[in-house]
Amino acid sequence: MPSKTQLTGVEVSKHHTPSSCWVIVHGQAYDVTDFLPEHPGGQKIILKYAGKDATEAFDPVHPPDTLDKYLPKDKHLGPVDMATVVQNTSEQDSPEEKERQQRIKEMPLLSQCFNLLDFEAVARRVMKKTAWAYYSSAADDEITVRENHAAFHRIWFRPRVLVNVEQVDFSTTMLGTKVDIPFYVTATALGKLGHAEGEVVLTRAAKKHNVIQMIPTLASCAFDEIMDAAEADQVQWLQLYVNKDREITKRIVQHAERRGCKGLFITVDAPQLGRREKDMRSKFDEDEGSDVQRGSTTDGSQGAARAISTFIDPALSWDDVPWFQGITKMPIVLKGVQRVEDVLKAIEYGVQGVVLSNHGGRQLEFARSAIEVLAETMPVLRARGLQDKIEVYIDGGIRRGTDILKALCLGAKGVGIGRPFLYAMSTYGLDGVDRAMQLLKDEMEMNMRLIGCTKIEELDESLVDVRSLFNHAAPPPDTLAWSVYDPLVSPEQRLLTSAGAKAKL
Amino acid sequence: MPSKTQLTGVEVSKHHTPSSCWVIVHGQAYDVTDFLPEHPGGQKIILKYAGKDATEAFDPVHPPDTLDKYLPKDKHLGPVDMATVVQNTSEQDSPEEKERQQRIKEMPLLSQCFNLLDFEAVARRVMKKTAWAYYSSAADDEITVRENHAAFHRIWFRPRVLVNVEQVDFSTTMLGTKVDIPFYVTATALGKLGHAEGEVVLTRAAKKHNVIQMIPTLASCAFDEIMDAAEADQVQWLQLYVNKDREITKRIVQHAERRGCKGLFITVDAPQLGRREKDMRSKFDEDEGSDVQRGSTTDGSQGAARAISTFIDPALSWDDVPWFQGITKMPIVLKGVQRVEDVLKAIEYGVQGVVLSNHGGRQLEFARSAIEVLAETMPVLRARGLQDKIEVYIDGGIRRGTDILKALCLGAKGVGIGRPFLYAMSTYGLDGVDRAMQLLKDEMEMNMRLIGCTKIEELDESLVDVRSLFNHAAPPPDTLAWSVYDPLVSPEQRLLTSAGAKAKL
Amino acid sequence: MPSKTQLTGVEVSKHHTPSSCWVIVHGQAYDVTDFLPEHPGGQKIILKYAGKDATEAFDPVHPPDTLDKYLPKDKHLGPVDMATVVQNTSEQDSPEEKERQQRIKEMPLLSQCFNLLDFEAVARRVMKKTAWAYYSSAADDEITVRENHAAFHRIWFRPRVLVNVEQVDFSTTMLGTKVDIPFYVTATALGKLGHAEGEVVLTRAAKKHNVIQMIPTLASCAFDEIMDAAEADQVQWLQLYVNKDREITKRIVQHAERRGCKGLFITVDAPQLGRREKDMRSKFDEDEGSDVQRGSTTDGSQGAARAISTFIDPALSWDDVPWFQGITKMPIVLKGVQRVEDVLKAIEYGVQGVVLSNHGGRQLEFARSAIEVLAETMPVLRARGLQDKIEVYIDGGIRRGTDILKALCLGAKGVGIGRPFLYAMSTYGLDGVDRAMQLLKDEMEMNMRLIGCTKIEELDESLVDVRSLFNHAAPPPDTLAWSVYDPLVSPEQRLLTSAGAKAKL
Amino acid sequence: MPSKTQLTGVEVSKHHTPSSCWVIVHGQAYDVTDFLPEHPGGQKIILKYAGKDATEAFDPVHPPDTLDKYLPKDKHLGPVDMATVVQNTSEQDSPEEKERQQRIKEMPLLSQCFNLLDFEAVARRVMKKTAWAYYSSAADDEITVRENHAAFHRIWFRPRVLVNVEQVDFSTTMLGTKVDIPFYVTATALGKLGHAEGEVVLTRAAKKHNVIQMIPTLASCAFDEIMDAAEADQVQWLQLYVNKDREITKRIVQHAERRGCKGLFITVDAPQLGRREKDMRSKFDEDEGSDVQRGSTTDGSQGAARAISTFIDPALSWDDVPWFQGITKMPIVLKGVQRVEDVLKAIEYGVQGVVLSNHGGRQLEFARSAIEVLAETMPVLRARGLQDKIEVYIDGGIRRGTDILKALCLGAKGVGIGRPFLYAMSTYGLDGVDRAMQLLKDEMEMNMRLIGCTKIEELDESLVDVRSLFNHAAPPPDTLAWSVYDPLVSPEQRLLTSAGAKAKL
Repeated sequence: MPSKTQLTGVEVSKHHTPSSCWVIVHGQAYDVTDFLPEHPGGQKIILKYAGKDATEAFDPVHPPDTLDKYLPKDKHLGPVDMATVVQNTSEQDSPEEKERQQRIKEMPLLSQCFNLLDFEAVARRVMKKTAWAYYSSAADDEITVRENHAAFHRIWFRPRVLVNVEQVDFSTTMLGTKVDIPFYVTATALGKLGHAEGEVVLTRAAKKHNVIQMIPTLASCAFDEIMDAAEADQVQWLQLYVNKDREITKRIVQHAERRGCKGLFITVDAPQLGRREKDMRSKFDEDEGSDVQRGSTTDGSQGAARAISTFIDPALSWDDVPWFQGITKMPIVLKGVQRVEDVLKAIEYGVQGVVLSNHGGRQLEFARSAIEVLAETMPVLRARGLQDKIEVYIDGGIRRGTDILKALCLGAKGVGIGRPFLYAMSTYGLDGVDRAMQLLKDEMEMNMRLIGCTKIEELDESLVDVRSLFNHAAPPPDTLAWSVYDPLVSPEQRLLTSAGAKAKL
Repeated sequence: MPSKTQLTGVEVSKHHTPSSCWVIVHGQAYDVTDFLPEHPGGQKIILKYAGKDATEAFDPVHPPDTLDKYLPKDKHLGPVDMATVVQNTSEQDSPEEKERQQRIKEMPLLSQCFNLLDFEAVARRVMKKTAWAYYSSAADDEITVRENHAAFHRIWFRPRVLVNVEQVDFSTTMLGTKVDIPFYVTATALGKLGHAEGEVVLTRAAKKHNVIQMIPTLASCAFDEIMDAAEADQVQWLQLYVNKDREITKRIVQHAERRGCKGLFITVDAPQLGRREKDMRSKFDEDEGSDVQRGSTTDGSQGAARAISTFIDPALSWDDVPWFQGITKMPIVLKGVQRVEDVLKAIEYGVQGVVLSNHGGRQLEFARSAIEVLAETMPVLRARGLQDKIEVYIDGGIRRGTDILKALCLGAKGVGIGRPFLYAMSTYGLDGVDRAMQLLKDEMEMNMRLIGCTKIEELDESLVDVRSLFNHAAPPPDTLAWSVYDPLVSPEQRLLTSAGAKAKL
Repeated sequence: MPSKTQLTGVEVSKHHTPSSCWVIVHGQAYDVTDFLPEHPGGQKIILKYAGKDATEAFDPVHPPDTLDKYLPKDKHLGPVDMATVVQNTSEQDSPEEKERQQRIKEMPLLSQCFNLLDFEAVARRVMKKTAWAYYSSAADDEITVRENHAAFHRIWFRPRVLVNVEQVDFSTTMLGTKVDIPFYVTATALGKLGHAEGEVVLTRAAKKHNVIQMIPTLASCAFDEIMDAAEADQVQWLQLYVNKDREITKRIVQHAERRGCKGLFITVDAPQLGRREKDMRSKFDEDEGSDVQRGSTTDGSQGAARAISTFIDPALSWDDVPWFQGITKMPIVLKGVQRVEDVLKAIEYGVQGVVLSNHGGRQLEFARSAIEVLAETMPVLRARGLQDKIEVYIDGGIRRGTDILKALCLGAKGVGIGRPFLYAMSTYGLDGVDRAMQLLKDEMEMNMRLIGCTKIEELDESLVDVRSLFNHAAPPPDTLAWSVYDPLVSPEQRLLTSAGAKAKL
Repeated sequence: MPSKTQLTGVEVSKHHTPSSCWVIVHGQAYDVTDFLPEHPGGQKIILKYAGKDATEAFDPVHPPDTLDKYLPKDKHLGPVDMATVVQNTSEQDSPEEKERQQRIKEMPLLSQCFNLLDFEAVARRVMKKTAWAYYSSAADDEITVRENHAAFHRIWFRPRVLVNVEQVDFSTTMLGTKVDIPFYVTATALGKLGHAEGEVVLTRAAKKHNVIQMIPTLASCAFDEIMDAAEADQVQWLQLYVNKDREITKRIVQHAERRGCKGLFITVDAPQLGRREKDMRSKFDEDEGSDVQRGSTTDGSQGAARAISTFIDPALSWDDVPWFQGITKMPIVLKGVQRVEDVLKAIEYGVQGVVLSNHGGRQLEFARSAIEVLAETMPVLRARGLQDKIEVYIDGGIRRGTDILKALCLGAKGVGIGRPFLYAMSTYGLDGVDRAMQLLKDEMEMNMRLIGCTKIEELDESLVDVRSLFNHAAPPPDTLAWSVYDPLVSPEQRLLTSAGAKAKL
């Protein structure tokens, strides 16, 4: 790297237009003028930081090696004397931000969090609005995201009593790896939105509790950072969004295998990333809300999800499966399967596993919950003697030890948990994720005892009553539609005044 | 038209009684004394404007050619010098109206509307109370109108994954016309209540998105105005309320055909227009609320719906179908069919289509949703090999791309959308309707991908789970009944005072 | 009646103890000392008025001839100079009563009532608390009373279209009497709680609309008053609570027959009148609330219902039916049947009709709605060819024309309506009941058209979908239980103060 | 006991550390230093009272003989001069406590309580927060505890009419004992949390109403106290948590039998006591809330339930049943059975009864309600002719006479009632429990009549409709999950100010 003299903030600030656009990231200036039209997230978001320090906005959505990878060396303008850069303090000084900082000060103690939902409650209070919106948002009316957990509440237990449950062991294996409890940390994007260190926090917690972490394609940290954060014997999987350019895909997969990844989870439910209106609304406020004069132009921000996913290949199909089998020896698991027919197809194609999932309710609204698809799937597999031909995982809506138990009773090999650990990480960091995992272990231990089982193998479908699971007579409430409906009212009282006397409430 | 000297406001204002009643409309005075008893909307509403300018109240409910058509030429008194007319400013100056005007100023930007319900939310804030009441009201307790959308939430998807969905095409045909997306703008009355230009706004938006507009009998604009607003190759259909005088009906139908209408949609679910209490209550406030002395007389206003529909023939029956087939070559579609038996009958009678519909919940309370009737109908048709003998449309409650997809999976040829476009028009005009249609296209494109289909033909019933659709265990809430119910309370605390000490909350 | 000199208020007021208790009713003094222990409503309520004017409390719960009938002549002390009686003004002057009087002044116009529930809304605002409590209360948690109407919302229509419905006729016959619309005014107790004239108001309205009134045993008016209020050709029925003393019962029945009653409705669902806690709580406040010193004695008031019903015979059984058949030629109808087995038994016993009813939800909590029992009953009757052997009526929860239609589609001969007419009477008197009945006729006319039927005979079970009627997955909310439940809360924020710093919300 | 000189408060207060920890209980000082690590409830709670008077905290959770039993004689330091002990008044002086004392003063009269839920409403207002939390809390999201009562609302009656119900007798027998009404007072822990005298209050009420009391292992009173409080002919049962040390268990059982207990109810649904987060949160506030500096340590209090139950044996199994049969002649009943398979097993093992129960919703979340398990169980028993081989009881959620009736119609021999009597005791003491029991008798008498039965033997399954009982489509609301969900919102209005003009609500 050639030595360069330091630039000043004033110099950089002159390049604040589309025709000459410089930005500062981590104390280095970059000329991104030519790159503007190619930016997957649109040029508007870059121009917002034209001539300024963009580090805080850059970090969560770009792995650290991004600029090196995608920007020609000659556009790297060298170090900036940060003392000369005017810090954008307006956001920090906003009343909203001050209130949030106060809420952070008054956060409950970690020891007051008794279940996974408690972290979500705290996260909602203390996370930045846009980050919360990105993590919590889901498709359309967010019916599916709520159904995901609600579906578990339509399953009831048929526990055994008078079983010696002094020793209970809920360890199991996943794709051959021994784990302490049958969940894994599933892949979720943009970890740095919630915590400055990003996904490596989850890596460390997963190690402590001996569970597997699935590394997301859209991580804030670079893939290798996350691998490096793992300890020697720690198992990680790779979640893959398939790039339109298969060479890139091949490079990623083979690199992961070389680095020691033990499973390849190909996302199959996201040929296009979902419209998540909470996310879009939140981005709108940030990016465009101040521009009252804009009037009614029709595109605007599509939210963070769209910005980061333009490379995903909507042409991915079953025909690609053999190609994947040719480029890697890792077990291949299809993530996002949503009907029994496709599970049967996956068996035919010889993959090692499927994750029944609707992508946390973030893709197709009114996709059924994974637990319902599981209850549809396993009896068919058993009827055909196929139940051992494939490992079936589910994710979506798991918040309690009882949820895990229900999934395993119905035949799942394990469950993926995503948002809850993000919330724990975004509020209490590694300690939070650690406690969240420990709470699940506490719940599992007790519930194994209460259901009358000592080993994972003893969990079977006789222990649950799923007759109401398929009943959608009372779906999650239709919030928007209800909020725009004017309920009927009874006739109003008449206000009797000396004057005009109009009929009133 | 003979030239006449201008009348003054003072002259007109003298004729403000039932025995001599003049009104001003668009700067012209008319003597409506003899017409009073014949006015379909009752004479009271005219007398409210006796001797005054009635233009604003006249426009939404009468096509512009009404006075020419129905009032003898000698009652046309000629132009009025509007500078001499005292404008009725009381309504504009009311606090309610001022608040509304402020709400209009503070309306969200169009780009903040991310779905069809958003327009409804804005319309509710900025429309005039009576206009909002007319558009949004429905029969009795408004259970059906809410069920219409709610029914879609009892249908869940069974999507396919790993299908190449790079190219998705959701164009289709309706009665032989190629359209870009399988919805049409269905007929709704009184467009000028929401927008000064009325239905032609919808005509323009329909052209832009290449969808069909169905022209309502009860439009605010004259039929020819709406036809004229269309471009050369633009397809429109006619919605017909059948007049007791069949000659009038014949004239309307044949005129429409000559003007190029490509479909005749005969409304069959409205032998009498519905009682819509929200509308009635809203009219009451406007017309009679100030008359505190009236006491308990029992008729009063029946709302806008009744006022404009007295000509509709309740004797219309299956026997009339051949007559229609004799007077036009346009395809005939029965709009408002509500049971499979009548779909079968429609096939026997040789009509080209049916619209399963309960008239937006505005007619028979507890009529089932169109989507439920569709799910009842198509299996019967398929069992008898009749599924290609007739085109089946539905309307009612469609707000999302997923709603359209569900209807098409179940066998509908297309869906009609009414109120949402009225709300978009009433808030942001043509831009609003344009964006509303674009949002539906965006949703359709993504959802076609997410469900794993590239063409309309691939949508079939295996992609949906309708088992809960027929389950009415949790109908929409019974608002009025709940609001008049006094919930039980626990025993109250006793207020201990030095004095009488009565038991209290 | 011997002439007596007038008593003064002071003289009467001296007799205000259990050992000498006089009361004034309608300007006459009575010595009720000996009668105290026999008073069916308990002596406490009398002692409240000892030495005072009891007219207002007396009237609603006693027919005018009560004192003549039950009190020996020598206890009739003669006229009181009312000018000398201190009026008990405390109640009139209470803030609650003043607010109520204001609400009465500001009542909506009758013409603002568009449906039967509107009268209930107004009644709730303007009726005396105890009267409202007596009319509106029901058994236990009031689940059944709410289910009664809610059950209708689980029935949906399958209307026919393209039927000539220009002429619709919804008249029918009940026990041979021609009526204009298939409802009758069912028996409800204590009419004077709501209106000074009591049940005769209903008599007059029934005449006007040519429907039948069922005269209650527990009317505020005397039986003969109600008969006298009817016009020559007007048909009335008698509702009978069977007295333990069969001679009294016989006298009542035969008197009614002689006076022209055309039907005997024997109440069979009330061997003991129900505990209605809203009523009990309301009486408690009135009678005992002021007595803070009472401490925890355990009986107290049982509400109005218990007070007036001590004579009812809990031993009444099927064996009594032939006896009734022997003492009257009136058609006999069993009111309060609740299972198909008992309908079959009623046919065996040769009675002319049954009313499926749970007594307005006032007796057995979790008795099913009459409409559900009807849907259970008629298929069984049809399967055995018995559907014409008996007339089946229902009551409970009917508020809309559609409710009536649903009952008739399912095979009811007619429906009884009770509370809604009481509320109309209690708010707007005869005009109110008149309008309530007219509203039902308006709804019936329109709904007959919309369902595609021109005559009552055309209504059949193919027009309704009752599959969800028997589904009780979402019963009316359990108000009390919910109100005493403390929902779980997320961990609280901690209040950071300089001092003790305790964890807080 | 050797005479000792009195200690002073100052002397005791010096021993306030883990290395020398003295406490005062009932005026006696104890050296508990060595006992600290063995305290089943953890040492923290003791250290809170180190050097102080611990009587108030000690009493509810320890039978009076605890210190004698478990603390070596030489650690009994003798009497303290209580006049020299500084009373810890801080709690009494807190604003919360003052408000509670005021609420106690303003409590409703006992005669205003008309049903069992009313006592719960009052208890919620006047009990100490931690006591209320311990009694009312349940497992996880408290779905099961609410389902327990809600399940009864999915059962509806099919009553008989025209039955002579003048005499109704709802007495029955339980394990051979004649009782006045088919409920018993089930075992609940820590009675002194609610009432200073503890469980003996229930003993006295049970005697008065001739029902059986089940004595809890975890009573606040000593077992013998409770036996002593009973009258000569009064029947009591023993509820048993089985100790890991079987000798202790044997001693307890045989002692109970000798003292006259007539039934041994072995709890089988609690190998580990449940996590009850309301209880844990409440304890946290009390024990640790003030310790803001603690930061995020992860264990902390597990609530009262865990503290008192460490001795329970999770190894208890079917193999232990014969052992119990060998050490006692008392009838043995398994309490907490939850599936029909285990009822069949219980019959095989020859026990006399089972209690279908989910431990008041306090153990396994999503265990089904006892009434549902009963409806599953009895048809299977009848099909195998086993219905008379065992007595089947249920507990959980019983609040009304109708609940008892439903259970008996479905085949239960009787029902256990727990919390409601605790609430009655905690608010109005013995009078409260007396009235609660009387209210149930009043409801039973009336409901027997209304259902048309005169004897317990006449109650059968034809009197109930349980078709919806197994339908879990609308489970109790998921409070925590709902409270952390951010509902979608419509686009906000924009606040137009002269300044920055940011889009706002």
